[in-house]
Amino acid sequence: MKKNNIAELMKEILKFRDNRDWKQFHDPKNLAEAIAIESGELLEHFLWKTPEQSREISKEKREKLAAEIADILIFSMLFAHETGVDIEKAILDKIRHNETRYPVDKAKGSAKKYTDL
Amino acid sequence: MKKNNIAELMKEILKFRDNRDWKQFHDPKNLAEAIAIESGELLEHFLWKTPEQSREISKEKREKLAAEIADILIFSMLFAHETGVDIEKAILDKIRHNETRYPVDKAKGSAKKYTDL
Amino acid sequence: MKKNNIAELMKEILKFRDNRDWKQFHDPKNLAEAIAIESGELLEHFLWKTPEQSREISKEKREKLAAEIADILIFSMLFAHETGVDIEKAILDKIRHNETRYPVDKAKGSAKKYTDL
Amino acid sequence: MKKNNIAELMKEILKFRDNRDWKQFHDPKNLAEAIAIESGELLEHFLWKTPEQSREISKEKREKLAAEIADILIFSMLFAHETGVDIEKAILDKIRHNETRYPVDKAKGSAKKYTDL
Repeated sequence: MKKNNIAELMKEILKFRDNRDWKQFHDPKNLAEAIAIESGELLEHFLWKTPEQSREISKEKREKLAAEIADILIFSMLFAHETGVDIEKAILDKIRHNETRYPVDKAKGSAKKYTDL
Repeated sequence: MKKNNIAELMKEILKFRDNRDWKQFHDPKNLAEAIAIESGELLEHFLWKTPEQSREISKEKREKLAAEIADILIFSMLFAHETGVDIEKAILDKIRHNETRYPVDKAKGSAKKYTDL
Repeated sequence: MKKNNIAELMKEILKFRDNRDWKQFHDPKNLAEAIAIESGELLEHFLWKTPEQSREISKEKREKLAAEIADILIFSMLFAHETGVDIEKAILDKIRHNETRYPVDKAKGSAKKYTDL
Repeated sequence: MKKNNIAELMKEILKFRDNRDWKQFHDPKNLAEAIAIESGELLEHFLWKTPEQSREISKEKREKLAAEIADILIFSMLFAHETGVDIEKAILDKIRHNETRYPVDKAKGSAKKYTDL
């Protein structure tokens, strides 16, 4: 039987947080800061690299990237929790919204922003 | 029956991407940039606000935040996909790692970084 | 006699760069990444802090902040240099532009974005 | 006679701020957020672009970039002002520090971080 892994991961994350009494620090402003900080750390792995070089990922590098993206995901999940956002619904809604902003016939193969399509 | 919603969401995201032939743009460097850009947009919702004000979230505001956090999550999932990172494992590994860096007896109620505990 | 310190600092920065043959890495995309990464490092100094706590700056902390803001300024100056932007003119133009977006009678004492004034 | 343009620009920036009674919002935490947000906006101009494409800057694009980099510089100057950092000294100190971290004979032509040299 498959499992609802977003809900299970959220449970683990909240347990970790509550064991340390950290909810008090997790207002949306601070969590949004944490996400921005961690996204800067992720980006640093690719600074001065070409796009092609960024695709060459050793096993050791992959482990570091996994740790960085996990930080972003964990803080994003905490943010969603604190702001009452349903993660699954938010992602599906955004895909639906992007389907209207980026219709296949116009957006195919193009990196333009929807405002320029 | 519950579902593996990370895998199902990933399938939706990749379908959206492939219909538009966008994999070509999704090198890790660009995806990390996208995450950083979206995290700045999320943060802008709280600029000049106090932490307390950041907790006051109207229904209208929640919808905007949901759209922003969805962008971060979608690009993070695409990043994990392109770099071969298992999202569920990465999050669980990071929680385990943080348990050693932030032992309950030292970290409880403290906002200090592990290097200062 | 006073000096044009932006021009003098730029000269120092370019000398440092050219001695290391680094111009080749300084395309605008990479420089913009560098600015974003350094701004995340600056922000980390205030994570989990209240706005009031962020105003309490010891001598030791001030030196760390000086080093972070210097990174942002240096990369911003290199970015301006590579993209042909006149720093002094850009800042004065932006102040003039903001004067029209934030007229004193509407903006005084308000933290609202110009789109909401 | 040349002029001390950092001091003159700072005077303009503070005049703009004080006319609007905005010092109250300019704690270091909020200013660091503002820098991070603006740096994300700058970066967005280069998203999905190759480094080569990022070097192709039309007159229209240059004006947009000038406005973005001005935002970053203005908030950085306000940050320095609020935290008591001397901008000119901070930049020169950082260049001196980088000269020891990146000696010419090791760093020439290399994009490696000093920790990997």
